[in-house]
Amino acid sequence: MRSSSSCRCKQEDHSNPRRTGTVLVAFMLIASRHGIDKSVLSLANPWLDFLPSDTAAETARQINDDVERMCAEHEGKLYAFGTLPLSAPAREVVQEVERLASLPHHRGIVMGTSGLGTGVDDPALDPIYAALEKHEQVIFLHPHYGLPTSVYGERASDYGHVLPLALGFPMETTIAVARMLLSGVFDRFPKLSILIAHSGGTLPFLAGRIESCIAHDAHLKKLGRIESRRNVWDVLKNNVYLDAVIYADVGLKAAIDASGADRLMFGMCTPCAQTQCCSTTYIGRHGSPFLPSLKWKRGRMAKRQAELASC
Amino acid sequence: MRSSSSCRCKQEDHSNPRRTGTVLVAFMLIASRHGIDKSVLSLANPWLDFLPSDTAAETARQINDDVERMCAEHEGKLYAFGTLPLSAPAREVVQEVERLASLPHHRGIVMGTSGLGTGVDDPALDPIYAALEKHEQVIFLHPHYGLPTSVYGERASDYGHVLPLALGFPMETTIAVARMLLSGVFDRFPKLSILIAHSGGTLPFLAGRIESCIAHDAHLKKLGRIESRRNVWDVLKNNVYLDAVIYADVGLKAAIDASGADRLMFGMCTPCAQTQCCSTTYIGRHGSPFLPSLKWKRGRMAKRQAELASC
Repeated sequence: MRSSSSCRCKQEDHSNPRRTGTVLVAFMLIASRHGIDKSVLSLANPWLDFLPSDTAAETARQINDDVERMCAEHEGKLYAFGTLPLSAPAREVVQEVERLASLPHHRGIVMGTSGLGTGVDDPALDPIYAALEKHEQVIFLHPHYGLPTSVYGERASDYGHVLPLALGFPMETTIAVARMLLSGVFDRFPKLSILIAHSGGTLPFLAGRIESCIAHDAHLKKLGRIESRRNVWDVLKNNVYLDAVIYADVGLKAAIDASGADRLMFGMCTPCAQTQCCSTTYIGRHGSPFLPSLKWKRGRMAKRQAELASC
Repeated sequence: MRSSSSCRCKQEDHSNPRRTGTVLVAFMLIASRHGIDKSVLSLANPWLDFLPSDTAAETARQINDDVERMCAEHEGKLYAFGTLPLSAPAREVVQEVERLASLPHHRGIVMGTSGLGTGVDDPALDPIYAALEKHEQVIFLHPHYGLPTSVYGERASDYGHVLPLALGFPMETTIAVARMLLSGVFDRFPKLSILIAHSGGTLPFLAGRIESCIAHDAHLKKLGRIESRRNVWDVLKNNVYLDAVIYADVGLKAAIDASGADRLMFGMCTPCAQTQCCSTTYIGRHGSPFLPSLKWKRGRMAKRQAELASC
């Protein structure tokens, strides 16, 4: 597996095959300890967002084929979200989505909030969303870019990485999903599935406020775009999956309340300072549609999640 | 009452006493309809943040005296959060806090996230926080400045006011409170009380993530600032009050879980397009320390909140 580091992960070189093997062994040990029998791997941020347009498609193919081989070597235990060449022309991205759909261990794609460069509400993404919907491939949406540093004020460096990591990531994610909702992505592609990192950013908590602000917006009303759309709760319960990377019962309960316990996943970043710190790996529970045979087993996190779901 | 408009409120002139009287009558009718017997009024954003330094203190005194008279005319029904001259020197702000403490109907102050100009984590605010703590005056923290418009992307204007209103306000608020936490405000002033608008922005949902990011931050660890501080949950349960302006059960339950049902308030903006849309007026429940005699009565919102609290 090739994986760039993210969050609090130490900046290490994961392009070395021996190092990658070590990381995978470490991950499999952690998964085993937590009673996780099936996992979905994905490349960490910033994925291929930084690549020149003319090399992106070939690089994506190489990475996806590498990961496919790795999954095949651990048959029945490992699956993957593929990497897209988002700096390439949209038709090349669509081609890779079509190709990924034919790979037996791929179940979706991982994507940042910049889309093709101007955000996930870009109409130029429509052919890509259409292909993902057609092939029932999940979008795993993960943050990378954060918020402009000015919002943290002139004393931000006194606080280490806390403000961009604790707040920038989930806020970036929430803004991106709200832009998808407002641009009508889930109206045009009603069967599109999206797995949102970090328990949806702040979406479960702010869903009511977003819905209310849409329902009362004079501009949207004038355009007739209030009544004709699917509301935020409908999308949360039918299109959205959330991970459990929220670090507390309060947030986890809200995530379950917003999308339903059967749409929650366990997520973790490997290698990383904390087991449950980020989101490179996703494990389904209760049999999700993109991994129908997945079940939680004896893991502590799964137990706690089940307790909360039964509250 | 002098009140500048905010959020979706129509931009109207509230400086006319007759107009102010009409607004107050409208508010008292709404309060009565919802079974609210006692309210705390405050000036809406942007308060006096825009005033020249040399006129701010006198303007604040005039407004606070006006509001004090208004409360006295509705004895037992109206109380107030005072307005501070935050563009004036800190000692003049402290003087107004001291003066407000002697006014019989004032119970705290309303403040934006800019503090004296560089944020609520500014050490120059310490004498003001000390005076507020000493006189048991609550800080009502409300957003105004939002996030830089660049974060909403190039299609933001297609979505009316939804993105800055639904997301900008709560994210601005959460960043501000996190900066207070990280700068040690609640360690230096352990009895300081703060009422956070819009159910804490996103604080109840992100509290676990903030706490985890602090607990694992290498920079803070090196400075010895992890073990010696009060944690986020301690502050949420002992210093923080939240309003119920979150528009959905999911968020309201998270707010109750984070701070406790006895620290939740009903809040509304008058005049405004929606009854429960913003936060000019705050109503305590279960007898809060700054309004010990306040009780919820028959209001629908209170009933729903009580149902959720008993879950």
